[in-house]
Amino acid sequence: MTTEPHNAAAAEGGATGDDPGGPIPLRLLPDTARVSEQGHLHLGGCDLVDLAAEFGTPLFVYDEAHLRARCREAVGAFDGGAAYAAKAFLCAAMARLAISEGMDIDVASGGELQTVLRAFDGDVAQRVVLHGNNKSVAELAMAREAGVGRIVVDSAAELDRLDELHRADGAVPRVLLRVTPGVRAETHEYISTGQADSKFGFDIGQGVAIAAVERAAAMSSIELVGIHCHIGSQVFRVESLARALDVVAEFAAPLFGEGGPAAGCFDELSIGGGLGVAYVESEEAPTIAEWGATLRERWRSLSKRYGFEARLVAEPGRAIAAAAAVTLYTVGSIKEVPGVRTYVAVDGGYGDNPRPMLYGSDYTAFMPARAGEPRPDRVRLVGKHCESGDVIVRSAPVPDGIATGDLIATPVTGAYGYSMGAPYNRIGRPAVVFAAGGDAQLVIRRETVDDMLALDVL
Amino acid sequence: MTTEPHNAAAAEGGATGDDPGGPIPLRLLPDTARVSEQGHLHLGGCDLVDLAAEFGTPLFVYDEAHLRARCREAVGAFDGGAAYAAKAFLCAAMARLAISEGMDIDVASGGELQTVLRAFDGDVAQRVVLHGNNKSVAELAMAREAGVGRIVVDSAAELDRLDELHRADGAVPRVLLRVTPGVRAETHEYISTGQADSKFGFDIGQGVAIAAVERAAAMSSIELVGIHCHIGSQVFRVESLARALDVVAEFAAPLFGEGGPAAGCFDELSIGGGLGVAYVESEEAPTIAEWGATLRERWRSLSKRYGFEARLVAEPGRAIAAAAAVTLYTVGSIKEVPGVRTYVAVDGGYGDNPRPMLYGSDYTAFMPARAGEPRPDRVRLVGKHCESGDVIVRSAPVPDGIATGDLIATPVTGAYGYSMGAPYNRIGRPAVVFAAGGDAQLVIRRETVDDMLALDVL
Repeated sequence: MTTEPHNAAAAEGGATGDDPGGPIPLRLLPDTARVSEQGHLHLGGCDLVDLAAEFGTPLFVYDEAHLRARCREAVGAFDGGAAYAAKAFLCAAMARLAISEGMDIDVASGGELQTVLRAFDGDVAQRVVLHGNNKSVAELAMAREAGVGRIVVDSAAELDRLDELHRADGAVPRVLLRVTPGVRAETHEYISTGQADSKFGFDIGQGVAIAAVERAAAMSSIELVGIHCHIGSQVFRVESLARALDVVAEFAAPLFGEGGPAAGCFDELSIGGGLGVAYVESEEAPTIAEWGATLRERWRSLSKRYGFEARLVAEPGRAIAAAAAVTLYTVGSIKEVPGVRTYVAVDGGYGDNPRPMLYGSDYTAFMPARAGEPRPDRVRLVGKHCESGDVIVRSAPVPDGIATGDLIATPVTGAYGYSMGAPYNRIGRPAVVFAAGGDAQLVIRRETVDDMLALDVL
Repeated sequence: MTTEPHNAAAAEGGATGDDPGGPIPLRLLPDTARVSEQGHLHLGGCDLVDLAAEFGTPLFVYDEAHLRARCREAVGAFDGGAAYAAKAFLCAAMARLAISEGMDIDVASGGELQTVLRAFDGDVAQRVVLHGNNKSVAELAMAREAGVGRIVVDSAAELDRLDELHRADGAVPRVLLRVTPGVRAETHEYISTGQADSKFGFDIGQGVAIAAVERAAAMSSIELVGIHCHIGSQVFRVESLARALDVVAEFAAPLFGEGGPAAGCFDELSIGGGLGVAYVESEEAPTIAEWGATLRERWRSLSKRYGFEARLVAEPGRAIAAAAAVTLYTVGSIKEVPGVRTYVAVDGGYGDNPRPMLYGSDYTAFMPARAGEPRPDRVRLVGKHCESGDVIVRSAPVPDGIATGDLIATPVTGAYGYSMGAPYNRIGRPAVVFAAGGDAQLVIRRETVDDMLALDVL
């Protein structure tokens, strides 16, 4: 097995106290993770080795207790409550779980909205928040008809559309305006959205947001109830997120304050999501509670200064779902390139986790049947897609002697893996299970060739 | 409309003679493209404006004549014939088109293999070549049972698996061994595969390939019929691809030549694919015929020197499909950031074209209803996915006065757009039509919410 230097991020990782060649640290695993006497990793009381045998691989295994705990943590961390950002990971079971734990749900399309609505017998629409930089008239109409709790308006064109729809039916949806505060969070270019140069929202710095608030407050076709602001994703410094509050407060004061053109319209400030999570040994991230405490404290002080009464709400997605899941793979071929590296190819890849290709994202790995063992070797974990870039972990720590047929798992794969994945090469997307109390419930079934052929016109 | 400097690649583009602010050059459009008196773009005799109205947007429109012409060009360019690399774009209609024009078909998974087999009533398996860096036992068994024409073996583990499967049924599949020649093509890191540091194939430089040839030639469970070698994708210098032939010939001579351990086993050399295509005004690419002529000439000379009788075959995918299609979008919201840029958001994005996010790939744009007009403005064409990185064209040239509701199209989207796309945000994947002789045939229907919900366990 070729040993290569671990990556730069990991090399700086002494700060976490984790030995990158040691056993997988529990802090990167879901809450209920424990290593059995046999050395197997258990989640939700289920042996991952058994789950792989029962459901096949690749398989996403979510720790249901972890998901529930994070939802409750988020609801408790923000006085105005919290909405789960469904784009991170959505299926009927996930929608029901989030709602049952007291969260609202953010959707970013008509398809996400329909998914949530169909997951419930009863009325859930008022718990739903509709997002999107380019909502179609059809999506806005669907959301109004369903009676969603909030529409987060992103552009002047959308205000036009809402005005027009109102003329047809007289309904008056509650609306937040999305503003971009010009705070750039320290994060990957692709997922930062706070700078003024963004496809999202009304820019504070350009005066565009002032005009939008003035217009929205005066419209009888909508009820303006506040502001939305999201400054980036995978942000580790809570202070960056808090800075956005300062900018928003300064912006809002003359508009929403006493005598302002939007006085009485500031029930809610949504700070969006963006809290980073630790994907690898070298990273440490704030908890949702810490994030909430810092923002709440800052908002309390700003509210006092400016006389606001708006509740602070947040929209975590990654922070709820990412660390809740691991992906199980089976090792297929192993290729050693002497003096360079060892390639370990598994039965998934780009199709279930495009983040390494999209963002250069880093992951780590462990063997579910040898979860307590040190991982002294380094391999490149690659997928089975016909594409050189189909890499899952550039430098994965593994125990000695990994072999064809072994199970290998990547932790922290619960967000933006399944949801952004594609059946490229007509390799069907994995099954997904929720594990709890020793049982695993299938929540998304494995995609078959028949599923993939269903769209082909024969 | 904010004018921004066009990108660096385009700035160097004087060499092509195309004015980046002029009308969309016909050379970036499919073969049958013509601008009507009305100024509308027609493909295959169909007005794109009519197709958008009939099928909705986003919509992939393939020029069937273009696809057919490229298939015939490929078959004629290589004396041993050519196989269409289905991963670039696959559906039943595409499989039938390629086969009917004399191409074989490359598949990279059991799902792609099944797609091709089901597209035909009669036997087509012998026209299929199975690829993959990590073929499962099930995929190998399926391919052997179907009787595929070639299995391109990627690793020693695969030889083991074929040996084992043989013991059960006695079948003897024809096999090529994939070797990596260590030629690095000038292309994006993610899609180069020729260097020894690759997940694919047996490395020539390491002696691994020699051992594999010796072993494969001696195995009674397979019939070794030659070598496969692919050195990268989107390669513009045909000489880079020809260089791989020199390396392979030098490698093959002592093994496959008279008296060598694999004498008599060299019927075929497959040079893979990799020919670049021009995506934007500043790029020019060799034709398939030029690619074939250069490689054929080089192989003829090498064959003479070393006494080979192997036929040269190739596996174009992108070169067949990329320039055959355009994607039609409808403009939704338009956001102007004064002094920075104008964002034009459309109804597709990452889900139908992830290449800009995956590779930083550049595209251009045109308005189907104003196809002959100059495009003096520059906008950032973005998608509707909830993701800042969801950009389709970073700096798209457009005519004056683009507005909500307008149609806009991106050319050269026929390869790796639909096939790598994902229903992220539960935004269904587009419909696909083949246009020819004034008619448009639906070959892939639009993905609905019901399709996306089909995998959810309720």
